[in-house]
Amino acid sequence: MAAAPVWSVDPRTGKQREQVAVEATAQDVDAAVRAAHAARGALADRTVRAAFLRAAADLLDEAKDELVAEADAETALGGGRLTGELARTCYQLRAFADIVDEGAFLGVVINHPDDTATPPVPDLRRYKVPLGVVAVYAASNFPFAFSVPGGDTASALAAGCPVVVKAHPDHPGTSELVAARLRAAAGRQGLPEDVVRLVHGFDAGVELVRHPLVAGAGFTGSVRGGRALFDAAAARPAPIPFHGELGSLNPVLVTGAAADERAEQIGAGLAGSMTLGVGQFCVKPGLVLAPATPAGDRLVAALADAVAAVDAGVLLDHRMRNTFVAGVAERAGLPEVTAPVAAGAGDEHTVRPGFLTVPAARLASDGVHDLLLEECFGPVTVVVRYADDAEATAVLSRLPGNLTATVHLSAAEAAGEGRGAELLAELTPLAGRVLVDGWPTGVAVAHAQHHGGPYPATTSTSTSVGGTAIERWLRPVTYQTAPEALLPPELRDDNPLGLPRRVDGRLEV
Amino acid sequence: MAAAPVWSVDPRTGKQREQVAVEATAQDVDAAVRAAHAARGALADRTVRAAFLRAAADLLDEAKDELVAEADAETALGGGRLTGELARTCYQLRAFADIVDEGAFLGVVINHPDDTATPPVPDLRRYKVPLGVVAVYAASNFPFAFSVPGGDTASALAAGCPVVVKAHPDHPGTSELVAARLRAAAGRQGLPEDVVRLVHGFDAGVELVRHPLVAGAGFTGSVRGGRALFDAAAARPAPIPFHGELGSLNPVLVTGAAADERAEQIGAGLAGSMTLGVGQFCVKPGLVLAPATPAGDRLVAALADAVAAVDAGVLLDHRMRNTFVAGVAERAGLPEVTAPVAAGAGDEHTVRPGFLTVPAARLASDGVHDLLLEECFGPVTVVVRYADDAEATAVLSRLPGNLTATVHLSAAEAAGEGRGAELLAELTPLAGRVLVDGWPTGVAVAHAQHHGGPYPATTSTSTSVGGTAIERWLRPVTYQTAPEALLPPELRDDNPLGLPRRVDGRLEV
Repeated sequence: MAAAPVWSVDPRTGKQREQVAVEATAQDVDAAVRAAHAARGALADRTVRAAFLRAAADLLDEAKDELVAEADAETALGGGRLTGELARTCYQLRAFADIVDEGAFLGVVINHPDDTATPPVPDLRRYKVPLGVVAVYAASNFPFAFSVPGGDTASALAAGCPVVVKAHPDHPGTSELVAARLRAAAGRQGLPEDVVRLVHGFDAGVELVRHPLVAGAGFTGSVRGGRALFDAAAARPAPIPFHGELGSLNPVLVTGAAADERAEQIGAGLAGSMTLGVGQFCVKPGLVLAPATPAGDRLVAALADAVAAVDAGVLLDHRMRNTFVAGVAERAGLPEVTAPVAAGAGDEHTVRPGFLTVPAARLASDGVHDLLLEECFGPVTVVVRYADDAEATAVLSRLPGNLTATVHLSAAEAAGEGRGAELLAELTPLAGRVLVDGWPTGVAVAHAQHHGGPYPATTSTSTSVGGTAIERWLRPVTYQTAPEALLPPELRDDNPLGLPRRVDGRLEV
Repeated sequence: MAAAPVWSVDPRTGKQREQVAVEATAQDVDAAVRAAHAARGALADRTVRAAFLRAAADLLDEAKDELVAEADAETALGGGRLTGELARTCYQLRAFADIVDEGAFLGVVINHPDDTATPPVPDLRRYKVPLGVVAVYAASNFPFAFSVPGGDTASALAAGCPVVVKAHPDHPGTSELVAARLRAAAGRQGLPEDVVRLVHGFDAGVELVRHPLVAGAGFTGSVRGGRALFDAAAARPAPIPFHGELGSLNPVLVTGAAADERAEQIGAGLAGSMTLGVGQFCVKPGLVLAPATPAGDRLVAALADAVAAVDAGVLLDHRMRNTFVAGVAERAGLPEVTAPVAAGAGDEHTVRPGFLTVPAARLASDGVHDLLLEECFGPVTVVVRYADDAEATAVLSRLPGNLTATVHLSAAEAAGEGRGAELLAELTPLAGRVLVDGWPTGVAVAHAQHHGGPYPATTSTSTSVGGTAIERWLRPVTYQTAPEALLPPELRDDNPLGLPRRVDGRLEV
């Protein structure tokens, strides 16, 4: 049987551009994982690892024009957006190199013998070691930042884990070009190129998560696909951690006082956030609680004006476009739902942005409108009009887990008057990132970032963006009464590598 | 239908002592979880939480005589061992109180706005919040330290999570007495007593892990029971973290040089470790690689002398006793397996300790002897005689994951001559704790402890003993551009609580 071809497709026309690869068979996946596994020892040296991450960033930077052009041809995300995304991706690789150099992620803890403890404590020295080969499932909507060279790959390599990436079918050509750069960067540092492998194909993705030598997985994508892979990871003879980012509504609550103060500004800001990147962000605000007041009406009017002025856009692929058009129509058909600006089909290849409104009472309890509590990927949002705090709370209590939750407050509420702190506390259980007076689109790469949240936002308590994303790919090991001569340098008393650590209970930096 | 009675049973006679409770129905479990969930807000204050943990330790200390007597009557573990275990348990509660006070576990990270980053970084402030209600599944073999007041409970309460404990049927009376002390301690600190709830019954345990308001689970027990609960946790509509400690062989490798140097000492030490607590430790050394040399023969002879001198003992329950007797007989019947001291039935209620030997070649590849690679709970170990390093490595490569792995080295090897460091590196992938020249029984409570390991040792990369056990019950949340007036004190710039933290990339203690 001939290998199944993998085509690069132009979403602006729906036409195949070129064949860029073939789908990996089970044997191909096995070979890729074994090669990556065999290469893992080469990543043990932290200095080399950091240099590799920086070299990867350099090579991607150098190839910027080619990579952005290929990615735009495959995703229609536009040169400006993709240039920024690639810059972010390179910044992220370098940020993880700095994290590798610092070494705090190793979590070094030393306890010297202590006979006063119950029971007595022997010499114990703990740090974290790489898990092993990590499977990375690339996302459709970020061909760089959440794909082959993205946060999962960067953090796994930083942790010392080789990666096998399952490319997303929306940008296989970009994936091939990027993987070649990462492998070349490894080679330049004297590492085996197989510390990064790339496979294509749906079945290959399933094989990958089941492979006995795969020790962990990172995923960004849909609830359906992510849950299937999560289930497969949990059902293995030896289950593995599966860090999946699946879906999120990203609720926004606008207080009455905030609407009174700046309804037009909030409406326009919302329009910008929900239509950014043709609404194809996992942190798109998908449900907005706006007061059923005259100020709330002004907010809706401002939103309508701004959204109506946004051009139709191309989604990442035609299946996604058709799903969006059908999903919007189904939602718009529910009782008491209005569409001040109708989202839906543009021409044969595009979609028009829009939004829906619904009274909060409809969402607070009945089952008829539950579809509005599910993410609709693309440029649409649902504005829920609430009559009072109780109605808003009732809707919030029905939401599944989210990546983000946002509140817009008046100046007085932000200064501590009224319910500001209470609302922050009410939103905290719903999400992994809680914003005040901002918009969730735009996920900064920083130590303090958290990009994750209660299920289905993510399948674990970890983050896929920011410095702590590295924690996902490590496991602790403690050495007991190991003689100094045999200890790795990270665990020696004299701390030759200058690592931050905890010694006999005391933190040292 | 009448509620099913829960009996306390004397394992020394197999007779029922008294009815101490009834099994929880699904409605009872629901009520317990809802009550615990309703109490969660009361645990938010860290000062109160720490005081509660210390009060719990005090109340358990005060009731020591009663608790130890009841536990001994139900488990036959003996007053000496149980007194020590209770002291350890109280020490652990107080250690977690110190950890709560210090606050490093909150993982505070602050990034001030930075326009030079790509993309720019807004004000981001991250810390960890409690997961919610934690289900704790008590172990048979530690009625205190891994049961109602054990590491899972102590770490969950320290994290700010209420607990619902599923009692182990081997010590329901002890569980009731201890739970009453924990609840009383909560009351003394002005906390709702429902921050700790206790339920009995197999079905109740299954209901518990499926309850929508349960946010995480800790388990110590068998592979079969733990895997079933792990699977149930993963199959929930919203999966939850399941931190289970299931099973471990705890391999020990004795080098030829170590045997040459101190065969008798190692044999006697092994006898002590494998028969401690009638072999009912999860870290019992269950597989020992000894050289097929004259020194190895001396090690086996010393082991035989020491084990033969150990009295028969009572296991935790009669089902366990019968499983041990059958398991030992099945293993002893395998080809080329010898039993220099035959383990098995003592009188009607006891078991005799013993050990088996087998040539390494039998274990290195054939399927016939795979049973020897499975944990046999009770006072038995398997001594594998290896002819050369390659044979030892071949056996090690076939082992499932372990809590511990141990190597006994000669003085020269420990000083860095020969293969010492290489052997440490070879054992590291096998386990979460690697010991040199010691015995794995005895798990100290310390920051640097790690009690966990590759599956089936544990179902996650976390530990159930030591300071970092608290990490299991937290999830991060980041506040973006939240005004100072609304921030929790933990995240304020002026650090009013004096927490260790990372600010703009720099660690501060």
